[in-house]
Amino acid sequence: MNLWFTENHSPNVLFSIKVIEHLYTGRSEFQKIDVLQTAEFGRILTLDGLVMVTEKDEFIYHDMITHVPMATNPGIKKVLVIGAGDGGTVRELTKYESIEHIDMVEIDEMVVDVCKEFIPQTASKLDDPRVHLHFEDGLKFVRSREDEYDLIIVDSTDPFGPGEGLFTREFYGNCYKALKEDGILVNQHESPFYEEDALGMQRAHKRITGFFPVCEVYQVHIPTYPSGHWLFGFASKKFDPIKDLNADAWNELGLQTKYYNTDIHVGSFALPNYVKEQLKDAE
Amino acid sequence: MNLWFTENHSPNVLFSIKVIEHLYTGRSEFQKIDVLQTAEFGRILTLDGLVMVTEKDEFIYHDMITHVPMATNPGIKKVLVIGAGDGGTVRELTKYESIEHIDMVEIDEMVVDVCKEFIPQTASKLDDPRVHLHFEDGLKFVRSREDEYDLIIVDSTDPFGPGEGLFTREFYGNCYKALKEDGILVNQHESPFYEEDALGMQRAHKRITGFFPVCEVYQVHIPTYPSGHWLFGFASKKFDPIKDLNADAWNELGLQTKYYNTDIHVGSFALPNYVKEQLKDAE
Amino acid sequence: MNLWFTENHSPNVLFSIKVIEHLYTGRSEFQKIDVLQTAEFGRILTLDGLVMVTEKDEFIYHDMITHVPMATNPGIKKVLVIGAGDGGTVRELTKYESIEHIDMVEIDEMVVDVCKEFIPQTASKLDDPRVHLHFEDGLKFVRSREDEYDLIIVDSTDPFGPGEGLFTREFYGNCYKALKEDGILVNQHESPFYEEDALGMQRAHKRITGFFPVCEVYQVHIPTYPSGHWLFGFASKKFDPIKDLNADAWNELGLQTKYYNTDIHVGSFALPNYVKEQLKDAE
Amino acid sequence: MNLWFTENHSPNVLFSIKVIEHLYTGRSEFQKIDVLQTAEFGRILTLDGLVMVTEKDEFIYHDMITHVPMATNPGIKKVLVIGAGDGGTVRELTKYESIEHIDMVEIDEMVVDVCKEFIPQTASKLDDPRVHLHFEDGLKFVRSREDEYDLIIVDSTDPFGPGEGLFTREFYGNCYKALKEDGILVNQHESPFYEEDALGMQRAHKRITGFFPVCEVYQVHIPTYPSGHWLFGFASKKFDPIKDLNADAWNELGLQTKYYNTDIHVGSFALPNYVKEQLKDAE
Repeated sequence: MNLWFTENHSPNVLFSIKVIEHLYTGRSEFQKIDVLQTAEFGRILTLDGLVMVTEKDEFIYHDMITHVPMATNPGIKKVLVIGAGDGGTVRELTKYESIEHIDMVEIDEMVVDVCKEFIPQTASKLDDPRVHLHFEDGLKFVRSREDEYDLIIVDSTDPFGPGEGLFTREFYGNCYKALKEDGILVNQHESPFYEEDALGMQRAHKRITGFFPVCEVYQVHIPTYPSGHWLFGFASKKFDPIKDLNADAWNELGLQTKYYNTDIHVGSFALPNYVKEQLKDAE
Repeated sequence: MNLWFTENHSPNVLFSIKVIEHLYTGRSEFQKIDVLQTAEFGRILTLDGLVMVTEKDEFIYHDMITHVPMATNPGIKKVLVIGAGDGGTVRELTKYESIEHIDMVEIDEMVVDVCKEFIPQTASKLDDPRVHLHFEDGLKFVRSREDEYDLIIVDSTDPFGPGEGLFTREFYGNCYKALKEDGILVNQHESPFYEEDALGMQRAHKRITGFFPVCEVYQVHIPTYPSGHWLFGFASKKFDPIKDLNADAWNELGLQTKYYNTDIHVGSFALPNYVKEQLKDAE
Repeated sequence: MNLWFTENHSPNVLFSIKVIEHLYTGRSEFQKIDVLQTAEFGRILTLDGLVMVTEKDEFIYHDMITHVPMATNPGIKKVLVIGAGDGGTVRELTKYESIEHIDMVEIDEMVVDVCKEFIPQTASKLDDPRVHLHFEDGLKFVRSREDEYDLIIVDSTDPFGPGEGLFTREFYGNCYKALKEDGILVNQHESPFYEEDALGMQRAHKRITGFFPVCEVYQVHIPTYPSGHWLFGFASKKFDPIKDLNADAWNELGLQTKYYNTDIHVGSFALPNYVKEQLKDAE
Repeated sequence: MNLWFTENHSPNVLFSIKVIEHLYTGRSEFQKIDVLQTAEFGRILTLDGLVMVTEKDEFIYHDMITHVPMATNPGIKKVLVIGAGDGGTVRELTKYESIEHIDMVEIDEMVVDVCKEFIPQTASKLDDPRVHLHFEDGLKFVRSREDEYDLIIVDSTDPFGPGEGLFTREFYGNCYKALKEDGILVNQHESPFYEEDALGMQRAHKRITGFFPVCEVYQVHIPTYPSGHWLFGFASKKFDPIKDLNADAWNELGLQTKYYNTDIHVGSFALPNYVKEQLKDAE
């Protein structure tokens, strides 16, 4: 049957994926949740009609949001993950024996339930004993934390809808406070290419630079996200993602990764001129 | 009016762009040629229904196919460009005063005529006195050349249709022969993401490695190409694209570029693990 | 979520319906079966990706395939329905107390099961005691019948795939034989508008006229079928659908119908000139 | 090239036509005007992105808006046509030698110019000496006319945008006044199927019945209009479209028509029950 999922990558650009089966549809308190079986990307999770995760390319996102900070500071022991209901970020974190405690704060419990049932590929490690699930607003959760985490990963949806609060100045300030004196903040940073995404990216960058002495941006190729050109923010109180990278230490861990390696760790911080200018304009 | 251009990025993925006006349609001896005015990407050139160039993102492709070899060997004086009928590669090359002679071999004169009329943004430098246009088959042109060029850029269409010959073993062998002893070959190398593109990429890589001692691959973000994750091949008889990069020399030239810089030059050669494995499998 | 079902109404025409939920997908021995929940048409049954029935406009098809012969001959007592797995034709027939026996022959039991579960609007009367379900090939079923039915309704899919046999000369000949001396055959007759449909329509008409002395065609508006312009064939051994229409008798029955009335019964046999010519060409 | 024109037939239904070439685009004082070359429908005229006329099916619309009133009253001599910039209605009218004078009032001269250049199939008779073109607002034109026309044909666009005024009470009242004592008004009446069209249809019907003693509605199959099920209104001061039909007289004229004949003239006034109820609700 000729069934297609379509997402507007910009008001004038459509990205359409052939659907084999619409496996799940539901509406939580926060958003519409759907799971689609597709030929090209395997299973896809969409929230309010936007692709969040596909089985085919999720490894790119999860490798790069996780291993970049972990390879920069191998001493990370306590991690806060905000959002990330699909579990992919936690799955990567649990590969590190050195991590002792992961708080994962997801506002929408139904996303986790749906992913556990339909996308075990990402949700497989949510019952690791080190993982503590909190179904609440990340914005509120982080308010009361102080000097507690080595790493905060903000694996949010786009800066409108339920994820909006995770792009505010207040939130980034609270993240700063919740981090230890050598803490690292990594956040999904939208895309530089289409206009609306680029504005969101610049806003996030401007706000983070107001708090952290080190603020870098790195890029990845995620084919199912608008333009395929996606950014992450790396902010920290002390660590520099390139100078402090301990490539040998990370490589000795022997972790299997499909996208990340310590060369692309460095390479991904080299940005095109037009992106550098967008960031400079925002600062 | 609701008019959309649609391209299959894979058999199960469609990429659609809203069209303001269909400016030109024609059929040359070799292919169907169309120019579309769009809201998101400005003017677009398609050949046989596939996007070749858009005004919005062509700078990425043309920066990276040109400046990477030029910054590696600032002594390049004679260049052969194969394909590239839109003129964007030549436009970038003519920025270098050190280049003395450019042979551009495009099989389809109508492509050049159409781009001159409708896409002057890329075709603007085709009448630079150093540029010599040859409307013939690149495969044949290169057969009779020996020890002549410092740089060959293969700016081809996909490896089926008119561009097919530019992906053959014979062609790469002739390129080797046509290059001087320190010559460089750069070619568009397809994408690692969707299956058919990845197979084309592996085939090209395998064939090139049969001739050149140095064979590297580098990656760029091109939103209008399938998956947005695109590769170029850098092959040479002597120069290493990273070790021999003379960043200071290039930066002193003061060229304005929107994507390329000497950091991303290096960074773009750091590939994801899965792409490295595809290349290793091909070798 | 932006999920669309698309059907080619011709090779160059697409008809797309927004989908709320993909309720069912399965593959029987004969075909792919899907049920979609849509905003515009309610639930839709598709077989091999083609719309068979929608809750919004099925009344048109089922009214016109049933009440036209029933109003022509109020004495119909024994009916054979071939195809029609959704049950809509049977639902209309069971409104007539005068009908004593209905044999419904559907090759694909799974279609009936799916419609009972997901589209009760059409499948609601399949357990009427007068209805006898036979899950077998209609082509074979009718071979062994002789002088038995007052009415045969061929409610088939298109003349390719599982429905192909129901458009053959052999099949129509067997229908003739299975009918009593005043028997009527009504069949879905494809559309006159798009080329492929029109060819199928002409073929069916040519074959039926080889057996029956009375062969008329009538038209209806079915928005979800290609072009919206659909035809039914009325063939009989004796009855003329207009001269023998007993409008008063039918109106006295007091049946509730949303499309059919005795005026449109007559009006629907008045065909456009171009359709009359297509039929004449076929005869 | 994969280029598609798409029209929303309802908010949840898309109708898409493959485009070979976008022949013309322009913006008049009143609307966006485009002409597309298509494989299935030949040339298409769209106004503000909605299909007005296609070469393949325009004969249906123009036959039925013209010959129904002309066959009802063969004595028609003076005709007012409002809208109809493509010229198809006038083309059919000029087939009648008995017609002495046609005023055609089209608000948008550019529509006529474009059709003359790109769609001569419909615009071929606009220079018949009996045709008088007036490029002005039909609503205003008709205000000053009294007891002048035997027939007014309102060949308008949809009841929003430039065509809005042609669906008002004031307009219909002025048409009544402009008609002679046995005058006929025929208007395009939208469709009964999709909700928004049906509301427009009911509004028009209600308003017309406020002025004319005879108010009937007839239906046609127009595949490129939403749902394919389209209506025309027949209002008159005296003539009944069925009782006064002089079929023999019309047939003696020997006019060639591809859709209209005197049987379908009668048949098209037989409406489905649901449409009759919509009309009754509106009255």
